[in-house]
Amino acid sequence: MTTATTQDGSLPHSTENKPAPETSQQMKAVRFHGKEDLRFEDIQEPKCGAGQIKVVPAWCGICGSDLHEFIGGPSLCPTTPHPITGETVPLTFGHEFSGIIEELGEGVAEKWKVGDRVVVQPIIYDGDCGACQDGLINCCYNNGFVGLSGWGGGLSEHVVVPEYAVYQLPDNVGLDVAALVEPLAVGWHAVNISPFKITDSVLILGGGPIGLAVIQALRARGCNKIIVSEISSMRKQYAKDFGAHHVIDPTKDDIVAKVRELCDGTGVHVAFDCAGVQPGMDQAVLAIRARGTLVNIAIWEKTATFTPNDFNFKERGYLGVATYVKGDFEEVINAISDGRLDNAHKMITKRIELDQVLEEGFRTLINDKDNQVKILVKGSSEK
Amino acid sequence: MTTATTQDGSLPHSTENKPAPETSQQMKAVRFHGKEDLRFEDIQEPKCGAGQIKVVPAWCGICGSDLHEFIGGPSLCPTTPHPITGETVPLTFGHEFSGIIEELGEGVAEKWKVGDRVVVQPIIYDGDCGACQDGLINCCYNNGFVGLSGWGGGLSEHVVVPEYAVYQLPDNVGLDVAALVEPLAVGWHAVNISPFKITDSVLILGGGPIGLAVIQALRARGCNKIIVSEISSMRKQYAKDFGAHHVIDPTKDDIVAKVRELCDGTGVHVAFDCAGVQPGMDQAVLAIRARGTLVNIAIWEKTATFTPNDFNFKERGYLGVATYVKGDFEEVINAISDGRLDNAHKMITKRIELDQVLEEGFRTLINDKDNQVKILVKGSSEK
Repeated sequence: MTTATTQDGSLPHSTENKPAPETSQQMKAVRFHGKEDLRFEDIQEPKCGAGQIKVVPAWCGICGSDLHEFIGGPSLCPTTPHPITGETVPLTFGHEFSGIIEELGEGVAEKWKVGDRVVVQPIIYDGDCGACQDGLINCCYNNGFVGLSGWGGGLSEHVVVPEYAVYQLPDNVGLDVAALVEPLAVGWHAVNISPFKITDSVLILGGGPIGLAVIQALRARGCNKIIVSEISSMRKQYAKDFGAHHVIDPTKDDIVAKVRELCDGTGVHVAFDCAGVQPGMDQAVLAIRARGTLVNIAIWEKTATFTPNDFNFKERGYLGVATYVKGDFEEVINAISDGRLDNAHKMITKRIELDQVLEEGFRTLINDKDNQVKILVKGSSEK
Repeated sequence: MTTATTQDGSLPHSTENKPAPETSQQMKAVRFHGKEDLRFEDIQEPKCGAGQIKVVPAWCGICGSDLHEFIGGPSLCPTTPHPITGETVPLTFGHEFSGIIEELGEGVAEKWKVGDRVVVQPIIYDGDCGACQDGLINCCYNNGFVGLSGWGGGLSEHVVVPEYAVYQLPDNVGLDVAALVEPLAVGWHAVNISPFKITDSVLILGGGPIGLAVIQALRARGCNKIIVSEISSMRKQYAKDFGAHHVIDPTKDDIVAKVRELCDGTGVHVAFDCAGVQPGMDQAVLAIRARGTLVNIAIWEKTATFTPNDFNFKERGYLGVATYVKGDFEEVINAISDGRLDNAHKMITKRIELDQVLEEGFRTLINDKDNQVKILVKGSSEK
């Protein structure tokens, strides 16, 4: 982070991308040590440096990525020093969080005040790689996430982040719903960079949290043909509740035939893969009309196969999407505030305490996945 | 082809999509009977029906698709009655051809005259499937090609085609160069529907006829960074002659590293796959910068593998393209006429007679592939 400009043209602070120094106080944190090893422990409280803001977390969501790390990681979490944070596991978890500003580092903008209600956009980026230079901080060649790659996380009593990561909340957006901004921004961004137009028909593979975020982003834009493919009966119900017009089941329906039937014999304009499994992708490709696009949001654990001729003969496209860029958090916050995303709070299916994260959070998500959308962990500002 | 409108809004003739009736005269034709079975033989001359135009071929190119059929087909050529032509192999070959109008069927537009110099756009489409309704005749659910799916072909003494297939040539476009309009249109169309912008850098996999067509289409648009990856030394030279700025060799260079080095460490904005092989695709994906696109023109013979995360983490896209749509032939003809495609004639590396097609055409392309770009077959109008 040298003299590169950020997407909005401002110069990043040369001191931002430094780890926060530690204080002599101890605090509680949920830390990931390795596969199936998550610990609720005492660590040193971070100190607020220049260009940084210290936040007391209010609510923090547990994400599918956290779960993936816990079950099969470390994969996203660094085991050799992260190029920006310099940290390795053990690391504090939690990248979907809101909170209250408790301290302002030297040099941060005057608009910030202690006590401000905020949400943290967790992307860590270097600011001068080719992707960052194009404004694509989400594609940074060295990128990472607060709560996955170092610099602490939302599952702790205090966290210090660069000023660029902090977004102010309007008065009518609750701190609990604010913890949903991050997953909602993933769906919002995917719709933003997809070729979706208001008259288009859409297929969504998977009715998990990201599938539901895509449904909401599409409804906020006025889409009137959303078809969701999902197996779990609870998730089917959620998909309907959040606004899917048709819910189909790959174990019972012929997805390609059914989608074509629902779309005048042709197929959808855009499909969003929020599941990341081969049979789903195979069906989605054929369920897309000529010149349609398959947008992949899912993180796949391995390689996939496809038939290039299925793309050529119908001029279909494929697009990978990653998290969000500058602008997406503001748009989601505004859409919650002005009512376009008026169902967001329904994503919260359980609320737990920081010391319950392993049993009531991770274990519940593993054993009772279908009944849960988003489990929120209460932070110290809410005590 | 019932009451559907064509892309330009005109009603297609209800009689157009009928096979031409036969006359009692015999004519010579090169017909594909099956794998490695190409015959120069006498067949009945077609008669010009309503809405149709009868053409004496002038020059006809031999295409990679013809070669694929000959070596390993029939695959594109129908072995059960084609849904539109009703024909099966044996079929007359030749879909890249120019000619002279010799007869006009009842009801064709007054602008046509016997003796007109024309080129044939060979796509056969039904006009009322979902793709055709969107103007995507190239993606027609029942599509075919004159010269591959029936209705005769350019490798014969006479051919009858629907009026919609015929395009007038300006005086300054030779009938030989006009036979190149079809392959040039493939490259032109791919660039048209790709996200390419004038300031973009481009990687092209393969310096065969389609790779060279893409180079020319990009040069015509002012692209100033075209990198071609090719193994054959003759094709490398062709790539340079047609305007590639850099030619690299996957057997000698690290394609990803080399492309990034040539593009300020980031990668190209767009890559065109004109080769259709797995290692090439794997390298191309990683040689594309964030938000870049891999455009596949190649017809793959089997499935391919890819790593979805390579698309997600850099928000890369993939786009399949197919031949051309209405508009592309006119654009290519105009670009040849006004000099933007001023190297097209250099693609002609050999000229042969109709009775030499097997030995001097197909066998030469199989045994001397690297030295040939396009072999043209002289038609009866040029005698």
